Amino acid sequence: MMEIRLTPLAWVKNSRIKPQDDHWGDIISEIVLDDEMSESVLLEISSFSHLEIIYYFDKVPDDNMPLSRKPRGNPVYPQVGIFAQRNKDRPNKIGLCTVELIWHQGRTIGVKMLDAIDGTPILDIKPVYKEFREKKDIRQPEWVTDLMKDYF
Amino acid sequence: MMEIRLTPLAWVKNSRIKPQDDHWGDIISEIVLDDEMSESVLLEISSFSHLEIIYYFDKVPDDNMPLSRKPRGNPVYPQVGIFAQRNKDRPNKIGLCTVELIWHQGRTIGVKMLDAIDGTPILDIKPVYKEFREKKDIRQPEWVTDLMKDYF
Repeated sequence: MMEIRLTPLAWVKNSRIKPQDDHWGDIISEIVLDDEMSESVLLEISSFSHLEIIYYFDKVPDDNMPLSRKPRGNPVYPQVGIFAQRNKDRPNKIGLCTVELIWHQGRTIGVKMLDAIDGTPILDIKPVYKEFREKKDIRQPEWVTDLMKDYF
Repeated sequence: MMEIRLTPLAWVKNSRIKPQDDHWGDIISEIVLDDEMSESVLLEISSFSHLEIIYYFDKVPDDNMPLSRKPRGNPVYPQVGIFAQRNKDRPNKIGLCTVELIWHQGRTIGVKMLDAIDGTPILDIKPVYKEFREKKDIRQPEWVTDLMKDYF
């Protein structure tokens, strides 16, 4: 089996200490480069309005990995595979979020709409290019719209 | 230093054998679950139109990691940090792309707009929820628009 080894490149600093389902929209997070990373990786980042943040759910235990589940354990939702939902209890424990870049200073950026808690290790930061966005309308099932109503 | 160990959860099958800069839009890729993964991880995936595919640039050598560069080595572009571009030569070698889901059958999905070559290991698959998309217009520098003109 192929094993891939990654290291944290930056870290999240914000006011949310414990995992929580909803109300991420009001939180401003700082993303601070790891001591091993040179400040130059952020050069010109302010020319972008949005970033994609790939992070690691380091608090998720290894032994809690359902292959499918009803999202949030809600009995009215359908049974859904882990690749058809964004639940944190997933193999490889990778989180992903599009954030608004608010400011950049030295080794730190300030972002909005990040759904990661304080201390979360960041695996990558990518600028959003318009051309990578979907060309057609997004279709999603009704349970997603219901689940997301208070998320941001 | 914290080390994070991941394994491939699925693999890319398509007609593109070598890395290439442009014209990804015409390629239909299959994503096939790794033998270790249960088919149930894909349950209900067809209720989504778009997916985010997180993959690993396994062909990128470890010793080729500029912290900043002119994108594609083009002298007319500015010097840009690796977190302000989507270039594959990046720490942790993670790729990310939003794809259109075309079909699902058993352990395989067919997708369009994936910019990964044949044999690429997949680290995660997430459905696109509308609510995770940016609320404001995307702003990007001119060099991105130029660089992306033949990408898809």
